[in-house]
Amino acid sequence: MRARYLLADYPTIAVDSPVIDAARMLAEQDLPGLIVVGDDGRPVTILPGTEVLRLAVPAYCQDDPALARVVDEAHADMFMGALDGRTVREALRARRRELPICGPDATALELAALMARTQCPLVAVVGDDRRLIGAVTLQALVDRLLVT
Amino acid sequence: MRARYLLADYPTIAVDSPVIDAARMLAEQDLPGLIVVGDDGRPVTILPGTEVLRLAVPAYCQDDPALARVVDEAHADMFMGALDGRTVREALRARRRELPICGPDATALELAALMARTQCPLVAVVGDDRRLIGAVTLQALVDRLLVT
Repeated sequence: MRARYLLADYPTIAVDSPVIDAARMLAEQDLPGLIVVGDDGRPVTILPGTEVLRLAVPAYCQDDPALARVVDEAHADMFMGALDGRTVREALRARRRELPICGPDATALELAALMARTQCPLVAVVGDDRRLIGAVTLQALVDRLLVT
Repeated sequence: MRARYLLADYPTIAVDSPVIDAARMLAEQDLPGLIVVGDDGRPVTILPGTEVLRLAVPAYCQDDPALARVVDEAHADMFMGALDGRTVREALRARRRELPICGPDATALELAALMARTQCPLVAVVGDDRRLIGAVTLQALVDRLLVT
């Protein structure tokens, strides 16, 4: 089983979209993550749902549980509303990491290892020109593997 | 908004269950992850879907893309079937990491920061006795935050 037989169309979001739109897309379409594309339509990054959430969490309390705890309840409910047009590009972390991207010939084992390694339940499948062909979700992969 | 108002009942899996049962549970119930409980009913660990998948990927190709690539296609489809009764406990990695567990009074911001930090779209909510009360999923949290 190769990626080409497991992939499906998947919505994308532009890198200059507001973070709040990314969060809304994730919630409304019940997606495991987002594929962020540049002006040329090629994937810039692939974000698991937890990273989309991270874009919306104020930097000062991302890594320190104590700081998130001292924010009072009223304000803790409003942090997403306070994003104020901040774009995905602005919120992305500079840290480079391996992206869950593969070609159409990747095997089921490669897809599984890639999802596990990148901790992303979503792999973008691209052609030779790096343009998006579709995506394989963890659910689609596990569903397929269990009936093999 | 506190965790107690966002949580819902969530299925659990025993730490001595076969890994294949964990994968099946994830796929059939379309879950974002699994809460693994010990004999006393308390959470031993919480695994995002990608970590459940990792339990099933042979150790030799978890961290090396090249090794996953050389496994031939026929075998690459069968790796889950080859698990052969291996239990979740046996497959868990020794590495300790912060678990996505909180009390019922955690705020929405604490939940979001915890999901982002642990890269897990699922938080187990426990009482003072560390017994499971329920879970908050990323979808439930984002849904709630966007209507606030």
